[in-house]
Amino acid sequence: MLSKNEIKYIQSLGHKKGRDEESAFIAEGTKIITEALNECPQQIIRLFAVISFFDETGITPNGQQYVEVTETELARISHLQTPQQAVAILRQFKPSAISEIGDEWALALDAIRDPGNMGTIIRLADWFGIQYIICSPDCADIYNLKVVQASMGSVLRVKLIEGDLQQLLPQCPAPVVAATLNGIPISNYSFAGKGTLLIGNEARGVADELLKITDAQISIPSFGAAESLNAAVATGIILWEIKRK
Amino acid sequence: MLSKNEIKYIQSLGHKKGRDEESAFIAEGTKIITEALNECPQQIIRLFAVISFFDETGITPNGQQYVEVTETELARISHLQTPQQAVAILRQFKPSAISEIGDEWALALDAIRDPGNMGTIIRLADWFGIQYIICSPDCADIYNLKVVQASMGSVLRVKLIEGDLQQLLPQCPAPVVAATLNGIPISNYSFAGKGTLLIGNEARGVADELLKITDAQISIPSFGAAESLNAAVATGIILWEIKRK
Repeated sequence: MLSKNEIKYIQSLGHKKGRDEESAFIAEGTKIITEALNECPQQIIRLFAVISFFDETGITPNGQQYVEVTETELARISHLQTPQQAVAILRQFKPSAISEIGDEWALALDAIRDPGNMGTIIRLADWFGIQYIICSPDCADIYNLKVVQASMGSVLRVKLIEGDLQQLLPQCPAPVVAATLNGIPISNYSFAGKGTLLIGNEARGVADELLKITDAQISIPSFGAAESLNAAVATGIILWEIKRK
Repeated sequence: MLSKNEIKYIQSLGHKKGRDEESAFIAEGTKIITEALNECPQQIIRLFAVISFFDETGITPNGQQYVEVTETELARISHLQTPQQAVAILRQFKPSAISEIGDEWALALDAIRDPGNMGTIIRLADWFGIQYIICSPDCADIYNLKVVQASMGSVLRVKLIEGDLQQLLPQCPAPVVAATLNGIPISNYSFAGKGTLLIGNEARGVADELLKITDAQISIPSFGAAESLNAAVATGIILWEIKRK
């Protein structure tokens, strides 16, 4: 049976303050937790799951790291409206350093605020083989449960670096290319074999002070009347244009 | 002052049953309501807004169609956590007919369930000049407030047709091309000048019985480890690939 303190602890990880204090975060559901078990088992601090999860995955509950809970207990610790078999507490990843990035394409995010967008961007970066994402401090917390869930497990793979983009961008792979509404059409821009794609905030786009230190501004041509594209969709289209060649 | 009945009526439009009974829906916020005032004022049944909205738009409240409300009243009728100056009740659009679609690209959606995805797809269709979207009956309700808000006003412009895709797809512009995980890479597929792009459900993809009546299956090449792409992002990438030529 779960103790009151355990329940309190898990609930505290629903908030950034609790996550930062414990250097931990929550993931829920069979898919992402199975990926964590396969790809980074050493990151799993504890796993709480109903018996069907243990049956399906072949893991044996041991009351320590792997704890069997009832459906009722799962509902108490889950942050989802519909709990999905398992809740895991994972260790936050060691931040990566800019200097690790090789001659490749990286992604930089300036104040992506919506957790759904943030998770979707992490997922599509993983799809397109982008290894590093550099986030400004005012992006949605990557360990927010909504980000983790929307990333569909990709948060376990993509390496994230958080910091001031004014300082970090000059150390990122060149050219730094910003997505804007009045840049060079992406079909006319010749993408190099490496670089950094800079995506701006959902409402205001890339901050002016960052535009000043970019090497180029590019745009997705419009064929209709919508004023802008969703930030995650725009990121996906440009990454495809970079990779299709 | 708003009467109890008015407040009840507006709240009832938060549910599909209420919307269908009244053939009406809710839009909130300055941007989308300004677009409605410019593009389809005849669709606006009533508009409730605080004085600053009337000042900014130059519209005169008349107590009938255009009603000035206090911040407190706005909070009572708004479905948003942070009410945004104005709430409008709009008439639902007359459904379009498949026969109206010309020699152009249309979009067909099989069970897109997430309102955020649905609204984002409507927005990006509008960006890429797609005029018609054909939706299966189990798609998220296009008049759901989350769909309306995520569409950023594009729901006012794109023409939507709802119905059984088994019956409708054969009447849509050919070829019907389905997005799947193991089709022809989109960079190798030669898109015609017209056709219908079929996008499937977030979890299961395009239904098997629909795949049987499509002319081709296409895929976005993967370069990393993510198992799939978000449905709206995939739609955006393929529409870009169609339009870039």
